[in-house]
Amino acid sequence: MTKTITVLPGDGIGPEVTDSAVRVLDYLFKTFHHDVRFVEERIGGAAIDAEGIPLPQKTVDQCQASDAILLGAVGGPKWDRQSTNVRPEQGLLGIRKALGLFANIRPAKAFASLIDASPLKSFYVEPVDFVIVRELTGGLYFGKPSERRGEHKEQVVDTLAYSEHEIERVVKKAFQMAEKRRKKLTSVDKANVLESSRMWREVVNKVASQYPNVEVNHALVDSTAMQLIINPGQFDVIVTENMFGDILSDEASVITGSLGMLPSASLRTDKLGLYEPVHGSAPDIVGQGKANPLATILSAAFLLRYSLDMDLEAALIETAVQNVLKQGYHTPDLKVSSEHATLVNTVEMTDQVISAI
Amino acid sequence: MTKTITVLPGDGIGPEVTDSAVRVLDYLFKTFHHDVRFVEERIGGAAIDAEGIPLPQKTVDQCQASDAILLGAVGGPKWDRQSTNVRPEQGLLGIRKALGLFANIRPAKAFASLIDASPLKSFYVEPVDFVIVRELTGGLYFGKPSERRGEHKEQVVDTLAYSEHEIERVVKKAFQMAEKRRKKLTSVDKANVLESSRMWREVVNKVASQYPNVEVNHALVDSTAMQLIINPGQFDVIVTENMFGDILSDEASVITGSLGMLPSASLRTDKLGLYEPVHGSAPDIVGQGKANPLATILSAAFLLRYSLDMDLEAALIETAVQNVLKQGYHTPDLKVSSEHATLVNTVEMTDQVISAI
Ligand SMILES: CC(C)[C@H](C(=O)O)[C@@H](O)C(=O)O
Ligand SMILES: CC(C)[C@H](C(=O)O)[C@@H](O)C(=O)O
Repeated sequence: MTKTITVLPGDGIGPEVTDSAVRVLDYLFKTFHHDVRFVEERIGGAAIDAEGIPLPQKTVDQCQASDAILLGAVGGPKWDRQSTNVRPEQGLLGIRKALGLFANIRPAKAFASLIDASPLKSFYVEPVDFVIVRELTGGLYFGKPSERRGEHKEQVVDTLAYSEHEIERVVKKAFQMAEKRRKKLTSVDKANVLESSRMWREVVNKVASQYPNVEVNHALVDSTAMQLIINPGQFDVIVTENMFGDILSDEASVITGSLGMLPSASLRTDKLGLYEPVHGSAPDIVGQGKANPLATILSAAFLLRYSLDMDLEAALIETAVQNVLKQGYHTPDLKVSSEHATLVNTVEMTDQVISAI
Repeated sequence: MTKTITVLPGDGIGPEVTDSAVRVLDYLFKTFHHDVRFVEERIGGAAIDAEGIPLPQKTVDQCQASDAILLGAVGGPKWDRQSTNVRPEQGLLGIRKALGLFANIRPAKAFASLIDASPLKSFYVEPVDFVIVRELTGGLYFGKPSERRGEHKEQVVDTLAYSEHEIERVVKKAFQMAEKRRKKLTSVDKANVLESSRMWREVVNKVASQYPNVEVNHALVDSTAMQLIINPGQFDVIVTENMFGDILSDEASVITGSLGMLPSASLRTDKLGLYEPVHGSAPDIVGQGKANPLATILSAAFLLRYSLDMDLEAALIETAVQNVLKQGYHTPDLKVSSEHATLVNTVEMTDQVISAI
């Protein structure tokens, strides 16, 4: 049966990097005779420009009907003055919510060839190999009320809301990942202040009894923000609520040397998932061939593994990327110190990955 | 007229480090013939043990009636199983709220003699010299409702609440600090998601018109978590809401090399302030003479400057600490690379500071 991947190029360098990933996927599908088709839809600023809204219904329907979604990036200064409801980011938040993609997976792993590029000393970076599982459809991002109040609208509230069910399903995902890894789970909260964090901790402890071989630790979000710098090698799987996950995963994204390398997956209970690079739309380098396509290509590897059950093909991409880096090929964002360092553009980097496969 | 400093030693190494700071202050007051008396009160676990509650009314009253407050640290594993309302941290949150100490000031500055101890490469750490101004009495920490809901208590909410007034007063403090420094203010929010952040941004822009010589930037909290690592030298004054400030200031606290060096001040509109080290109660090293008193001694310098208008005396402490470090004196937490490195205990370090003054 034909599988469908919806491609959402989005804004800025989004189209350049999704083009690259689609080329890599296409090459693999042809080589392995997989019947997969690509459908492109609009999201973010591109959708605002064409249709006046950041997430057209057609995009949602097409994503719902597909097996996986590959997204580039959304946003840019062009749309920054828009009113709240027609901002590009609403497209991203909207698609996550509409599809119920509650678990955002962001790995942080040291690439041997990029360790020198990290702001941290190698001693701290070398052992880094962890995954952040961020709750993605609850908390402060979607809680109501979120509004101005008072006679002169001089008050404002946002709401951090969770149900046990929402916490449980994402915590389970994290335990499942930990079971397949080094069996260590760090749950991050602010239980000394927030009622929601105390419920979070209770749910984690309850779910823990179903995974007796996983070691569980509870950590406070402020302390974790420190530990990610002074001892990032201690972590295996980190699970946390939406806003804490947003902050900590961005912090984690820079310790290993390049944001341009980091893939992410947004998953739910079935196989459907949305895959996107961690980096943004980088409006300053659009159309110059400077975009690093590797984060999106590695996101495509996640797509193969988690949504299409193509583990071998996923591993082929990952190995190819490692090899290309080892050979010294790099886009301008990567500070590679190999003797044979060769600066390449977006398309050339993609060519290199394909020939390394 | 006699001035009064209330000392709240608290838990863990709290009493050891406040003892040190009081000795330094006492030496200065004697030398300069200042009429200042110290009154000690209980807070945190120490108050729970003695009186069953983390913040006795007597402590609040005494703090209200004094000119400045010096706090050690609160909390420890001993009280971790307590119910929510009798936890040591409630004492700290309670005193901040009771006194209306809305502006928490935490500097991050590279000490030349400690740069090698940073997990970051010197290139990144050397230019670091910024201050985080964290809103301390609003937001998720105090917003209501904060409760379980639903038939089976299967829902939970916390509330992030602010008024324009609360935002304005802390933002003004930050502008005032920026005016006396490098005139650069970074306001951190999550305006692409939170209504409260959009109000925060509006208030910052409004207040900005009163400080035309301060350059203002708005940054997102996730992006700031990255920038603190990849380019911490860019910041001068950062202002942000309570929870973002909690996370970012802890992150910032580790980039310069030692948490054991960092003071903080919690201020309001008049001169009363509460001063405490950024580090915690370190229950693992209690009573071993290993505690580094410098963060508390530097907090005492802030106390002199902000609450008692003793700028010269404050500067004397700060210079003395610099000199003692330069001479290689260090507690076990400090990784000093000087040739003449001399390991000292808490009391000896305090002696060194006093003789350096
Ligand atoms: C664009 C923004 C709304 C989004 C978020 O906060 O979730 C982004 O920062 C991310 O992490 O994917
Ligand atoms: C102990 C805790 C409640 C407190 C806070 O979150 O404010 C601490 O982390 C701090 O930053 O002073």
